[in-house]
Amino acid sequence: MKPDFVPQGSVEIPPIPVQDELLLDPGKTAIVVVDMQNDFVKPGGTLAVEDAAATVEHIAALLARARAAGVKIAYTQDTHYPGDREWEIWPAHCAAESWGWQIIDELAPAEGDLVCRKSRYDGFYDTWLDHYLTRIWQVENLIIVGTVASICVLHTAASAGLRWFHVVVPANGVSALTPFDQALTLRQVSWLYSGSVVRREDDIRFT
Amino acid sequence: MKPDFVPQGSVEIPPIPVQDELLLDPGKTAIVVVDMQNDFVKPGGTLAVEDAAATVEHIAALLARARAAGVKIAYTQDTHYPGDREWEIWPAHCAAESWGWQIIDELAPAEGDLVCRKSRYDGFYDTWLDHYLTRIWQVENLIIVGTVASICVLHTAASAGLRWFHVVVPANGVSALTPFDQALTLRQVSWLYSGSVVRREDDIRFT
Amino acid sequence: MKPDFVPQGSVEIPPIPVQDELLLDPGKTAIVVVDMQNDFVKPGGTLAVEDAAATVEHIAALLARARAAGVKIAYTQDTHYPGDREWEIWPAHCAAESWGWQIIDELAPAEGDLVCRKSRYDGFYDTWLDHYLTRIWQVENLIIVGTVASICVLHTAASAGLRWFHVVVPANGVSALTPFDQALTLRQVSWLYSGSVVRREDDIRFT
Amino acid sequence: MKPDFVPQGSVEIPPIPVQDELLLDPGKTAIVVVDMQNDFVKPGGTLAVEDAAATVEHIAALLARARAAGVKIAYTQDTHYPGDREWEIWPAHCAAESWGWQIIDELAPAEGDLVCRKSRYDGFYDTWLDHYLTRIWQVENLIIVGTVASICVLHTAASAGLRWFHVVVPANGVSALTPFDQALTLRQVSWLYSGSVVRREDDIRFT
Repeated sequence: MKPDFVPQGSVEIPPIPVQDELLLDPGKTAIVVVDMQNDFVKPGGTLAVEDAAATVEHIAALLARARAAGVKIAYTQDTHYPGDREWEIWPAHCAAESWGWQIIDELAPAEGDLVCRKSRYDGFYDTWLDHYLTRIWQVENLIIVGTVASICVLHTAASAGLRWFHVVVPANGVSALTPFDQALTLRQVSWLYSGSVVRREDDIRFT
Repeated sequence: MKPDFVPQGSVEIPPIPVQDELLLDPGKTAIVVVDMQNDFVKPGGTLAVEDAAATVEHIAALLARARAAGVKIAYTQDTHYPGDREWEIWPAHCAAESWGWQIIDELAPAEGDLVCRKSRYDGFYDTWLDHYLTRIWQVENLIIVGTVASICVLHTAASAGLRWFHVVVPANGVSALTPFDQALTLRQVSWLYSGSVVRREDDIRFT
Repeated sequence: MKPDFVPQGSVEIPPIPVQDELLLDPGKTAIVVVDMQNDFVKPGGTLAVEDAAATVEHIAALLARARAAGVKIAYTQDTHYPGDREWEIWPAHCAAESWGWQIIDELAPAEGDLVCRKSRYDGFYDTWLDHYLTRIWQVENLIIVGTVASICVLHTAASAGLRWFHVVVPANGVSALTPFDQALTLRQVSWLYSGSVVRREDDIRFT
Repeated sequence: MKPDFVPQGSVEIPPIPVQDELLLDPGKTAIVVVDMQNDFVKPGGTLAVEDAAATVEHIAALLARARAAGVKIAYTQDTHYPGDREWEIWPAHCAAESWGWQIIDELAPAEGDLVCRKSRYDGFYDTWLDHYLTRIWQVENLIIVGTVASICVLHTAASAGLRWFHVVVPANGVSALTPFDQALTLRQVSWLYSGSVVRREDDIRFT
């Protein structure tokens, strides 16, 4: 690698281990649904991710089973105001109270779910997510779904991993902009955060 | 990408823009030297990175020029004690006060440099790095070098980017375990944190 | 003091210096209005502070002048959900979306003001307050008003002081439960955080 | 209180409840020894607290019993470098590696104790204290001793209370500059953080 410090072209993905099945104690588990807002998911959204639509039914199925089992649910909600520096590097998106900022109807939070408004990529940065997970709910496992895989999903997973939560990502519940970005997300989760990658959301059982 | 949510084999790297030259105000700039400790760099280190040795001369040259120009210098120093959970997922490494924990002699901190002992991948997590950068030194640009690229370098860069520091990474000053990991590091820095990637450390000028 | 480690009865207050007048650059200044919500301020609120009503007109006058001068405005909004451990040590209060949780009508946030929902006493803890003050607005002075003086006002002032904001508290803009608590608040602000205490909100000038 | 918003003279201390005896599970308990460094404790220290000397034997006795019972021990160590803004508001103190910065010989950390270097009043701010307490040791009770009561002890207690640790302060293990400051410390701990104040360190039992 030495003569070419900036890799280009195609590259080999290190093997990403996938678990066939994962059993989790529902009383020790929470789900974080990351940024499933109109601007990221729906046609017409200012930063729509093409592959996000295909994840909605899987996330919905996971949430339905999780609620029935008593698993705690949190959402992150990307929230920006005029003057935010993110709008200098991205198109204006997720303006507070706008349509694009709303969580999509199919995944609307239920009574008792927690919503974490955030200003940057990481759901743990400048939000009360950690306070609830650690001090109030006292969970150990964190299932992370949503979009964009290599951005807000990955940075939330990183902060969870650093705090020693057991991070779980079902690959059909996250969506990326390129295959490289999907690969880097699952690489970091499975290898670096000692997390569990499963192929499908129904490979996770609450028992 | 939809039918195969867990990418395997080879994958195309998105283009990584490289700047030919970068001019920085030395009074508004700091360098963070990440984890250049014996255990990560030297033969016999418990987590030695093969490509790290080739970066030492480039980091040393950068530091010499930076000190002459009055740029602030910080080091992260990975630090673990018996019972640390990191030793369950990695071999025991960087035990406090051990040889492996020492910063390599070639890059020994000078009088006035700041050392940030850290327990996890991110130099901003549970350290005083941000307090010094933001409240004491009040810098805007953060040049990040060291190892491991996709681990402690990347997580430090991420936290810097979220806080709106201008992140700068010279590709010949960081070392990864695989070309994929080097690529994902530079992809995230250049694209996601709006950072600047240069090929060589001497593409950075302090003026 | 040695034979009686737990002081009782009456005690001498150390002198609290008061500045007659304070000039602040409006472009470098923000105001944080702490917890001026119905439950803390209005008759019928579950944790009403008797002296809070007298502060409303002074806070309103300060905000009017500040808005005219272009000073940034942030609010903290104490926010709790069923199951919150705070309701084990306090009566249930500031339940999300309830009347008691609303900021009082007289001080309703205006377009462009920032609202920081918080779960505990400190407006910097698990909120985006610091991100806005430091990374977006880049202010230096922080005027803090609201209630309860020795609780949410003081803990927000402490976190601001630790981050080297210049903390400013007008005594007629904060309300405590006892004279001792008012005294300890102003003691800590003026002495420990190197802050500025003024007697009245109109002792602060934006120039 | 309304006509005199800045209290002066003497003031009545609200009652501070004191527990006669407190039983703690040693496996769920840690002690934080705050800033017992030469500069704060010893004659000739630049910020010596007159009453700190009398606390040393009590802290030593507590540590001896705690170590025998397997209680975890952490120290904070105030640490400053030239250019630190704290030296603009306080005399220069606790310069890294100096005599004044050393923890006093009588309370020297033992093998396996954790030392947390900190730059400001709060042992949780920019240190790894919380990471160890919450993620590695997973304790619930935090006994806090040391100096200065109303400064570094109190701010560490506040951050512990906000994170829902059970805060315990033995009054003969902390030292203040004035009776008012001792009173405000114990007032905040017992009332605001729902902590436990005991009169003497031997009122705490590990069982």
